[in-house]
Amino acid sequence: MSVGELFNPRSIALVGATDKSGWSISTLSNLRTHGFTGSIHLVNPRGGVVHGLPARRSLTEIARPVDLAYVMVPTAAVLGVLREGAKLGIRCYVILTAGFGEAGEEGARLEAEVAGFAAEHGLTILGPNGNGYINAAAGVTPYGLPIAQPLLRGGVGVVLQSGALASSVLSFAQARNVGISLLTSMGNESVVTVTDVVDYLVNDPATKVIALFLESIRDPAAFARVARRALEAGKPIVALKIGRSRLASHTAQAHTGALVGDDDVIDAALRQLGVIRVRSLEDLIITAGLLASTGALPGRRVGVVTPSGGASEIIADRAEDEGLELPPFAPETVARLAEIVPSFGTVQNPLDVTGYVLIDRTLLGRALEAVIADPGIDLVMLLSEPPKLAPPDPAPVLATYAASARRIAASPVPVVVVSNVLTDITEFGREVQRETGFPYVAGGIEHGLHAIGAAVRWSELRSGALSRPPAPPTASLTVPSGATGVWAEHRAAGLLASGGLPVVPSELVREEAEAVAAAERFGYPVVLKAAAEGLGHKSDVGGVRLGLGSGEEVRQAYREVTAAVPSLDGVLVQPQRRGGVELLVGIVRDPAWGLTLAVGLGGIWVEVLRDTALRVLPVDAAEVRAALAELRGTALLDGVRGGQPADLDAVADVVARIAAFAESLGDGLESLEINPLLVNGSHIEALDALITWR
Amino acid sequence: MSVGELFNPRSIALVGATDKSGWSISTLSNLRTHGFTGSIHLVNPRGGVVHGLPARRSLTEIARPVDLAYVMVPTAAVLGVLREGAKLGIRCYVILTAGFGEAGEEGARLEAEVAGFAAEHGLTILGPNGNGYINAAAGVTPYGLPIAQPLLRGGVGVVLQSGALASSVLSFAQARNVGISLLTSMGNESVVTVTDVVDYLVNDPATKVIALFLESIRDPAAFARVARRALEAGKPIVALKIGRSRLASHTAQAHTGALVGDDDVIDAALRQLGVIRVRSLEDLIITAGLLASTGALPGRRVGVVTPSGGASEIIADRAEDEGLELPPFAPETVARLAEIVPSFGTVQNPLDVTGYVLIDRTLLGRALEAVIADPGIDLVMLLSEPPKLAPPDPAPVLATYAASARRIAASPVPVVVVSNVLTDITEFGREVQRETGFPYVAGGIEHGLHAIGAAVRWSELRSGALSRPPAPPTASLTVPSGATGVWAEHRAAGLLASGGLPVVPSELVREEAEAVAAAERFGYPVVLKAAAEGLGHKSDVGGVRLGLGSGEEVRQAYREVTAAVPSLDGVLVQPQRRGGVELLVGIVRDPAWGLTLAVGLGGIWVEVLRDTALRVLPVDAAEVRAALAELRGTALLDGVRGGQPADLDAVADVVARIAAFAESLGDGLESLEINPLLVNGSHIEALDALITWR
Repeated sequence: MSVGELFNPRSIALVGATDKSGWSISTLSNLRTHGFTGSIHLVNPRGGVVHGLPARRSLTEIARPVDLAYVMVPTAAVLGVLREGAKLGIRCYVILTAGFGEAGEEGARLEAEVAGFAAEHGLTILGPNGNGYINAAAGVTPYGLPIAQPLLRGGVGVVLQSGALASSVLSFAQARNVGISLLTSMGNESVVTVTDVVDYLVNDPATKVIALFLESIRDPAAFARVARRALEAGKPIVALKIGRSRLASHTAQAHTGALVGDDDVIDAALRQLGVIRVRSLEDLIITAGLLASTGALPGRRVGVVTPSGGASEIIADRAEDEGLELPPFAPETVARLAEIVPSFGTVQNPLDVTGYVLIDRTLLGRALEAVIADPGIDLVMLLSEPPKLAPPDPAPVLATYAASARRIAASPVPVVVVSNVLTDITEFGREVQRETGFPYVAGGIEHGLHAIGAAVRWSELRSGALSRPPAPPTASLTVPSGATGVWAEHRAAGLLASGGLPVVPSELVREEAEAVAAAERFGYPVVLKAAAEGLGHKSDVGGVRLGLGSGEEVRQAYREVTAAVPSLDGVLVQPQRRGGVELLVGIVRDPAWGLTLAVGLGGIWVEVLRDTALRVLPVDAAEVRAALAELRGTALLDGVRGGQPADLDAVADVVARIAAFAESLGDGLESLEINPLLVNGSHIEALDALITWR
Repeated sequence: MSVGELFNPRSIALVGATDKSGWSISTLSNLRTHGFTGSIHLVNPRGGVVHGLPARRSLTEIARPVDLAYVMVPTAAVLGVLREGAKLGIRCYVILTAGFGEAGEEGARLEAEVAGFAAEHGLTILGPNGNGYINAAAGVTPYGLPIAQPLLRGGVGVVLQSGALASSVLSFAQARNVGISLLTSMGNESVVTVTDVVDYLVNDPATKVIALFLESIRDPAAFARVARRALEAGKPIVALKIGRSRLASHTAQAHTGALVGDDDVIDAALRQLGVIRVRSLEDLIITAGLLASTGALPGRRVGVVTPSGGASEIIADRAEDEGLELPPFAPETVARLAEIVPSFGTVQNPLDVTGYVLIDRTLLGRALEAVIADPGIDLVMLLSEPPKLAPPDPAPVLATYAASARRIAASPVPVVVVSNVLTDITEFGREVQRETGFPYVAGGIEHGLHAIGAAVRWSELRSGALSRPPAPPTASLTVPSGATGVWAEHRAAGLLASGGLPVVPSELVREEAEAVAAAERFGYPVVLKAAAEGLGHKSDVGGVRLGLGSGEEVRQAYREVTAAVPSLDGVLVQPQRRGGVELLVGIVRDPAWGLTLAVGLGGIWVEVLRDTALRVLPVDAAEVRAALAELRGTALLDGVRGGQPADLDAVADVVARIAAFAESLGDGLESLEINPLLVNGSHIEALDALITWR
């Protein structure tokens, strides 16, 4: 399979070309209009003239070599075309034809046959049931729907799992003056997948940013590898992944399972991979456009320059939403600005240079120059945009924007231009940008600040991820024999302890007197817990007694526990712990992404608030610390009401070791839950554990 | 003062008109271009010819009556113009001139003089330091900046506290094909305020929806009254109120005070008033445009019809964000749709009629007709939009949209049209809408669904608010003498009890023996608390001892408490309560909005999570129930881990009575805090209280 050849053919055959098909008309028209310089061949079984050109009856009749066949024949004829093509040495195909996997069992069977044939013969196939692609960078556009003019070329590679959205994406990109390198409508992905195309785009010199519309990620491991490559290459991936509203519950018996919806795992995975997840097509294109224009941003301290008080107040609100900082200007900047801004204005960040810009056209530019030089900011946000309509004499307008453009280009820090509201960049606006070099305009304060925030977060994550060594591979333990079903506490805790993890001391007893003897050894108060194979939530069935302060209480509790729970393996005696903060540490196998860590504050925090932070394994201690910091109740770990502050390094270390231990248990592990993990300063101890094997 | 006359003059004098001023040029040009049919007079102290017309030297020289003077003279000359105008009987003014309150002390003094003169002579003044207004409905546009063509007339009244945003608002409204009735740039509001203009718009037959950009609400009580009038009149108010990021802390000593930022109070107040708060200019206009088009929406069950699978998945996600329901279609609808949608499509809500729409242009319309008839939906969302560019022959396009428009107009439920992405409605798009009656297009799935959600919430709040009688006025108690400073528990609780509120029994003792005697009467365990004038958080100073189980423990605790807290008034003895859920009920005086209720779950829920719900008083029990339901930890009230469910009606009743009691204490009350209010099923009791007087 060669995706590079697929996207860069020198000759294309349209198989099934006919005057009666809109797709056929559009594909040929697109190739002609958007600069394809190679040869085009039309194939129709009846021959004759199609679209005004002579048509061949079959691929075989074409005398010259064909690099790509664009297949529009009826479903039943597709495999025949592939057989003929393969025989002729044609390696790349776009299959527009529908009626495959999306159309039921028979179609799925046929699609499997196509995929099998492709694998056998090394064919590269985009589709079936996809409109093809638009390689704007190379001027190769075998694409079955009309492409609105002008097709803007630029640094954004777009990969779509929904063909119907392509027109909207192109239309919106045009309205933002965002140029694309390649747009692919994936279809059923029976051979070439989203991951394959992303892999190509990471290497594609024309592509600076990758924008994805995703319905599902088929091979998370492969996707993760290519996402890591993109991060290393400095090419941001922005993704609109749908399915946020569908909570698929896991089958794991462990408590954690119920807390983890599929989408939460995907969300965590994408964040860990440095993929910028957005929730709208607008944010997809605006964010991609910004990153294609600026690359990584150096920090989150933003100097804001606007000609409007109202706008700067909206910006202050939105900047806080996005975690951006608007630090006060340095004294020298304030002094400089005081000379520039009219006396009725206020020199502050965000800066409103006042409506006096309407009188003095140089005001905004001079203020920008002062703010650019401020030593305490990482980037400047300038509120501006090109005009919509050409005046009778455009020269003065062009000169003004050219001056701004030069100033921005010479700035030592990135200058991001944002418009007030999200309206289209018009044809004249694009002309101004093209002629003067006036930079990309992130559309509207609302979406523009989202884009800046996303770009800053991506830049920070990237430098963090690249500076940390990848997690070391974990050695696989020999999983104990009999590892099936649910291991209740008495077995699970033993396994954890054998892995060197801190577990509360415990004795398994089978008689009242033994229980009292164990309690005496630990010292009162103690805890009694039913120990039974397969017993999950033992407190729900009356299998736990806390705070037992004397031998008599232990005897009484022993009788109650053994009466409440039939077929016991015994009763666990443990010292009663007091104080501290309880954490829940759960590791559950996500069907797609594999072992996933959920960490949260125990009890009602998890049960009522569902306040957990997720990470796909492997994780290191730094990642765990970041996860703990995400919790809404994270302040509890700092100690409240006189409680001892948790030693966060020690907590993160233990949790990371638990995660590594879970990984070392191999593919047989379904879930591992420690609830609670008691944190008392730097004393950390698992008080209960449950393991479920697949 | 007459705002109606201000906005509907038959003759206008431009005072300070000069060829050298862009404002002067724009104002005259706007009046001429946008249909002003009355007489226009130019006034310049030098006379002569201005803008090609003869200019008078003063208002007095104008022979005919003047309804409105648009004042552009230097700051120092403004008062003279008003004096002259008042003498001539000119009642209405727009003052464009700046240099008043916004420019320092001298300006503020001058502005006060202007306002005083206006009050004395009954003048109606818009500004100073404002660009004027655009009465699009009446074709009266005394406005100092260029107005982009075309000025679209329609049902949205816009009031802006930032003049600089007017151009962006107009430009965005044009791009959404949203027509305005009136746009006002408020300036310094020294006479006419936002509230006055809203009051006018509530009565204005041309206005269906009111859109506000607010920096501050100057007279909350007056604003509240007019907002209530708007709600009753069925005119939604949509507001972009900035200042979300600025947390102003209250001075109240009560704990609650620290939890309530000004903006949280404003947010609560706006919600209670039925004002739709948005966070972007885009949402301001798109939401206002939708409501101007549909009015109130009948419910939150939405049937979705789209030509795109990808779009319907984005819609499903966004609908959930907005609390909208996409219920399954009724069996008869499914059967009907199965006949319409191609066999490879799936009949479900949201409905994707498939890309086959490109072949069969009637498909979307027929599917829409089937969904409209579904008995289980309140409204339909149709993904569609007018074309951007006119084809050589527009007739077939117009016919298609006309057919859709007829179908939508005939629908028994509202049909809201939403476009895929937020791009401009072009000139041809507007023509299509105008010619065919194709309805308003809520721009882009992202903002369109926000608008639908906001409109549904407003509609629900409106019917709820109008169906509930307003809260009864609370009788003012005689505030006890000596009501200053902080009243600690022993006095605060007594006052509450005197008001018939449930308070834990308590005895104030001054000797060990008395303490033991009181404890014996209550029965063990008991609580001892230091009682001292002005003592706020007594547990912080060692003034509280819990769980005392015997006379000896009481004696010991008495000695400790009296040793820990000097200058005691005595010690409170109370029975120790167990179990239940603790609430915090705080009422604090917001400097702008008055007494405000904060209710939350006690302890860490408030301290760590800051999980409180706010309501500006008065509130009834229904409003308190809604507030309790907003808490993140609200599930705790339903009983978790075997706890008794709270009797929510009883809780809401007690909290509403506490709020009414606080109101009855009159203007001297600064704050009243009950922490905790213990809820044990239907047994509800204040365990501690603190009152701060102003």
